[in-house]
Amino acid sequence: MNHTAEFDQAISLSRTEDPSGYRADLGDGWRFGTSILGGLLMALAGRALSEDLGKASGHGDPVSVSAHFLSRSLPGPATVRTETLRQGRTVSSGMASIKQGDHERVRVVATFADLAGKTTAKPAWAFSAPPNMPPPEKCVGSEMAPPSLLKEAPFLDRVDLRLAPECVGWALGAPSGQATMQGWLRLPDDRAPDPLMLLLAVDCLPPVSLDLGIPGWAPTLELTTHIRALPAPGWLRLRHSTTLVDNDFMEEDAEVWDSTDRLVAQSRQLTRLGRPDS
Amino acid sequence: MNHTAEFDQAISLSRTEDPSGYRADLGDGWRFGTSILGGLLMALAGRALSEDLGKASGHGDPVSVSAHFLSRSLPGPATVRTETLRQGRTVSSGMASIKQGDHERVRVVATFADLAGKTTAKPAWAFSAPPNMPPPEKCVGSEMAPPSLLKEAPFLDRVDLRLAPECVGWALGAPSGQATMQGWLRLPDDRAPDPLMLLLAVDCLPPVSLDLGIPGWAPTLELTTHIRALPAPGWLRLRHSTTLVDNDFMEEDAEVWDSTDRLVAQSRQLTRLGRPDS
Repeated sequence: MNHTAEFDQAISLSRTEDPSGYRADLGDGWRFGTSILGGLLMALAGRALSEDLGKASGHGDPVSVSAHFLSRSLPGPATVRTETLRQGRTVSSGMASIKQGDHERVRVVATFADLAGKTTAKPAWAFSAPPNMPPPEKCVGSEMAPPSLLKEAPFLDRVDLRLAPECVGWALGAPSGQATMQGWLRLPDDRAPDPLMLLLAVDCLPPVSLDLGIPGWAPTLELTTHIRALPAPGWLRLRHSTTLVDNDFMEEDAEVWDSTDRLVAQSRQLTRLGRPDS
Repeated sequence: MNHTAEFDQAISLSRTEDPSGYRADLGDGWRFGTSILGGLLMALAGRALSEDLGKASGHGDPVSVSAHFLSRSLPGPATVRTETLRQGRTVSSGMASIKQGDHERVRVVATFADLAGKTTAKPAWAFSAPPNMPPPEKCVGSEMAPPSLLKEAPFLDRVDLRLAPECVGWALGAPSGQATMQGWLRLPDDRAPDPLMLLLAVDCLPPVSLDLGIPGWAPTLELTTHIRALPAPGWLRLRHSTTLVDNDFMEEDAEVWDSTDRLVAQSRQLTRLGRPDS
């Protein structure tokens, strides 16, 4: 019997009677605070669009996914409605809307391509290097987190995340002020990384605002992820940073490297600070 | 008689019979190559959503605008269809679609707020400094460009753009390899910068790929801009850079500072290299 990895179960879809619709179930295990993790929602939207655009034009890999978060996604059933916006020769684009009942949770616009046909050579120009960290076994896993945090963020049990030791000072009341988070990430069950998993990966680290001494989660208003190559099997390395915290908003950038030192994903999000409700 | 600045004429809208629709005209003067400048299309979509969301909830300022470019926008009439996705207490979101005839050109999702009520203090944390450049009069204006370029990119006559001298080596066959473009920007007619103008500003510099010796324009697949504060009057300073050029795709980041040294806009786009058609 095949074993389906937890992540693949979480983004599994079934068709509705409406040909542009899918049914999904948002598992409580992917919650942090009261909401489902934004990265999981992006992977879910990406999965639906990958079905549509992969079949229609062979463009099954997301290269740019933009999501605007409209209301809190709660554990439970959801629908994903898709619309093909364009079928091109090398790229295709689509829209996805995730709803729960009448409440729209996320609106996504995305552009897809076929990365398998492209990922051949080394990056032509890379102006960023992977984070320099101790190996995963010398980093700080979720099992070190206080039980109260794990209860608040059960998605930490769904991923194998190891924070670099220099990035956990905030948890001990001593943020570094560098506004940087670095860590290792993989899925359990030997589930190898792929473009959909990278859509999740960019949203797993704690917000860099913690490293500035700003307490609390930072609710995402918008998150755009670029998938730049098919990732090799093995651990991913993540680095998050910010350039500007201003007017209660923060931009946060993530970079993801695969086990061959290739920069395989980049993301940027706009979050709001200090205001969990709107 | 009031004088309407060229930029404001270019993004002026009239209502259609459909309450969610606007009519616009894409002026040939905002063309580069065969297409209308992406930044102008984003300002046009931003203007339509600002009408809708500003009236409905007082959130008239774009804070995050994500655009996926579907086909080439040509000079001539266009329609902008909008949809309000969410009206919140501090932010509201909407969708805009720009079409010419049956051809959708751009699909936009955006989140708006009221920046006037927010822009009070200095940035809390800024990890980036404005570019160090000679004053505008010592930089390289479009009047120095070869007439063939101006004919190909007439939008350069609509803006006052001055490139830093160290960023024009590519035009002389000697790209610096730094993958950086820096310059000053303002609109003629003393038209002060505002959030809509910032949506244009992030898309005015030549692609940084030129500075790597890669010839040609870099067609934008997706462009997301964050407006972080209302800009002060005066010249803007722009810096564009890239972190990764890979698999025929390039990500390009822009930062925009106002005359008070405040970082007022950030953008990131995914472009394709060497393939003008899709």
